[in-house]
Amino acid sequence: MTTIPLTPLDWPISPVVPLLATATEAAEAEADSSLVLAGVLLSLVAIYFASKLFGELCARINLPPVLGDLIGGVVIGVSVLNILVFPEGGVTADSSAVMNFLQSTADLTAGSLEATFAAQSEAISVLSELGVIILLFEIGLESELEELIKYGPQAAIVAVVGVVLPFALGTVGLMSLFSVEAIPAIFAGAALTATSIGITAKVLAEIGKLSSKEGQIIIGAAVLDDVLGIIVLAVVASLVKTGEIEVTNILYLTVSAAIFLVGTIFLGRLLNPYFVSLVKSLKTRGPLIISALIVTFILSYIASAIQLEGILGAFAAGLILGESELQRDLEEQVVPIADMLVPVFFVVVGARTDVSVLNPFEPANQEGLIIAAFLIAVAIIGKVATSLTVFQSGINRLAVGVGMIPRGEVGLVFAGVGAASGVLSESLDAAIIAMVIVTTFIAPPWLRNVLEKGEAAEATEKEEAA
Amino acid sequence: MTTIPLTPLDWPISPVVPLLATATEAAEAEADSSLVLAGVLLSLVAIYFASKLFGELCARINLPPVLGDLIGGVVIGVSVLNILVFPEGGVTADSSAVMNFLQSTADLTAGSLEATFAAQSEAISVLSELGVIILLFEIGLESELEELIKYGPQAAIVAVVGVVLPFALGTVGLMSLFSVEAIPAIFAGAALTATSIGITAKVLAEIGKLSSKEGQIIIGAAVLDDVLGIIVLAVVASLVKTGEIEVTNILYLTVSAAIFLVGTIFLGRLLNPYFVSLVKSLKTRGPLIISALIVTFILSYIASAIQLEGILGAFAAGLILGESELQRDLEEQVVPIADMLVPVFFVVVGARTDVSVLNPFEPANQEGLIIAAFLIAVAIIGKVATSLTVFQSGINRLAVGVGMIPRGEVGLVFAGVGAASGVLSESLDAAIIAMVIVTTFIAPPWLRNVLEKGEAAEATEKEEAA
Repeated sequence: MTTIPLTPLDWPISPVVPLLATATEAAEAEADSSLVLAGVLLSLVAIYFASKLFGELCARINLPPVLGDLIGGVVIGVSVLNILVFPEGGVTADSSAVMNFLQSTADLTAGSLEATFAAQSEAISVLSELGVIILLFEIGLESELEELIKYGPQAAIVAVVGVVLPFALGTVGLMSLFSVEAIPAIFAGAALTATSIGITAKVLAEIGKLSSKEGQIIIGAAVLDDVLGIIVLAVVASLVKTGEIEVTNILYLTVSAAIFLVGTIFLGRLLNPYFVSLVKSLKTRGPLIISALIVTFILSYIASAIQLEGILGAFAAGLILGESELQRDLEEQVVPIADMLVPVFFVVVGARTDVSVLNPFEPANQEGLIIAAFLIAVAIIGKVATSLTVFQSGINRLAVGVGMIPRGEVGLVFAGVGAASGVLSESLDAAIIAMVIVTTFIAPPWLRNVLEKGEAAEATEKEEAA
Repeated sequence: MTTIPLTPLDWPISPVVPLLATATEAAEAEADSSLVLAGVLLSLVAIYFASKLFGELCARINLPPVLGDLIGGVVIGVSVLNILVFPEGGVTADSSAVMNFLQSTADLTAGSLEATFAAQSEAISVLSELGVIILLFEIGLESELEELIKYGPQAAIVAVVGVVLPFALGTVGLMSLFSVEAIPAIFAGAALTATSIGITAKVLAEIGKLSSKEGQIIIGAAVLDDVLGIIVLAVVASLVKTGEIEVTNILYLTVSAAIFLVGTIFLGRLLNPYFVSLVKSLKTRGPLIISALIVTFILSYIASAIQLEGILGAFAAGLILGESELQRDLEEQVVPIADMLVPVFFVVVGARTDVSVLNPFEPANQEGLIIAAFLIAVAIIGKVATSLTVFQSGINRLAVGVGMIPRGEVGLVFAGVGAASGVLSESLDAAIIAMVIVTTFIAPPWLRNVLEKGEAAEATEKEEAA
């Protein structure tokens, strides 16, 4: 035992005792709980500051603010300032600016410092996990089963081809051109499938095209694409987990994903009236949001327990509760919670990304950069080519294709899961992030341009006809 | 090194790696990150379920729902069901129903199981800490400096006497009658000082008496009382921290509390217009709530860094941001976040309370029960006697006294801090909780009764005069 002077009230705010202390092996390295809280508070301040600073910069130059979270994370993370770092890849408390600052006000032993660093990193990680659960719940809430069905076959074809084409092109290309192994190649290919419904919907709304035919097809396809992307992520992540590609495994996962989604949606619709009347009968604070969180956390747990992803459960929870008459209230109430927790996820993703791998002046990076260029090309070509499947006439096909390009938050989820899994090489992970950044960067101005050109052409046609 | 089969993607959702692994001493006891998340999700479901079930029961029988959180915590905690337990007082993962359930689906080594238990408990603790920070921020938002000043001398006298009298009676009584040592006696005395503004305001609102003279004095005094209680808590907690009573220490703490509160309020008022225009200039999601959280977390950190309590910083942040024109928006947006996090705090407080100490059939408990009876008597007499200081005529004095009785959430904060500090004996801690429960139980029906009797008497007087 060391002689850490554990004061009687070293954790000043709410009931907790040094938590790492009980694992017998960790007895020598007790976390200082008041410093854990201080570390979490300082980390959150850094996260929010970075999120707002870079998010606002992005907003000013007409780029999606979620990019700002990512860039802000890169700046405060392991790549640049080392304010928000995690105990991985040889990083110790010495590398953490927050821990160094706290250590200057305290006097911890090396072991206790590492334990405190580990504990505050664990807390930030759980907050970031809750952030992505809330994000997918919110996406589920905003998605509508009715919409998925209404824009029917056209959106479905666009979505399916828009998932299959980039996935196939990316996976096969990586394996044949770059000799990447099957599992990482599949993972990277999967990261190419997503479409960011948030970014695309926002761009369409900004230029008043949300309810246009193109807008409706893009949104319908993006909603379906989101679901497909989540299934693909679940399937791929589970494949990575078992370490090999087994047809029975794929079948099991696809079937359990389908049963889980269809089952929860079916049960959800059945139980929704009871949920609504239960919520309405509650008299204490937060009846709706607490009931919704119970459903979300239970489905997240079940989804992860049956080898799918927790986020799939959160999405299903959002989808079924979004069907109830309480959707609007719920959407409203989930906003501040998402505002609080979602940036933690994206900033943490950025903070854990070592972008030095993209430095073109470093010869060792050239492979990563070539892969990035390939992924970007596939990401764009795959979605634009998909637009050729639009069979209805009078549609600005290019707009549909370009609208599907931004990978945004869903692509980042893949990058984050990939980074955590250890299945992706650093250069491949960085290449995926670069692909997400570039596609998310170029899509908004490009989509606006394509739609405006389309309008001009239409006007000219009408003039000539008249 | 053990041979824990760390799968490449054992943490399936967002970027994290086994966090406890880096502390060298803990290398043998790696937490399974996917199980940490599963444990957090299941714990949160248990917390929300207990909070709602018992909160609703309390609401039906006209008791404050916060009591339900506490009772729910007792039921799922170490006293009864062992669903939500913490690694303290010899509790190991074997005692945790959640960990046993998770272990049945996984196959962890003993060390890894304990580390996972410790990590998920740490995460729940940080969530509960954030809960009490958000709670005090919300109380600060709802408090108004203007009100404090407006109901001026009368409310101030009621508040000060209502803090000093129970504190002195309780501390002296415990030391002389029960031979309790000075520091725990002072701590218990301090726990007698608080008034729950939330409970009292709610009761007054329910019977339409919020804007009556009595109501205004009670609320004014309760607001002041809240601030005094927080200062008392900060002073007492810091006293406990240093282990002895030093006049210079009391002076330092009182002065730094005063400077901190006055300074932040002064600076806050000065900077509020800039805060408002900054928030209004932001274009990305959550401009108000994220900016407010940055202020709250920074002030919480500073308050704890200068030896005060983090919650004092959160209260100050609420008080100053509540002065800005954005108060209403902020109050609205903080509600779902408080709904999500505050119950975690109260349920955790209940879960950590071993109420078996209150079993009257156990001879060893008699001292605790006698102390509880004494504290309850002081808690009631102290506040009712305080009402004799009401010098304005035509006031229902008894109503003012009874309105100050419920200790509610502030008393529970004391109990929680006391439990965490280890300064209170189990019986004294249980006695404080019993006092908080009893005062919070009896005040609402009693206050209603007193006010209605007062009305009847007034009506009779008017009739007789006519």
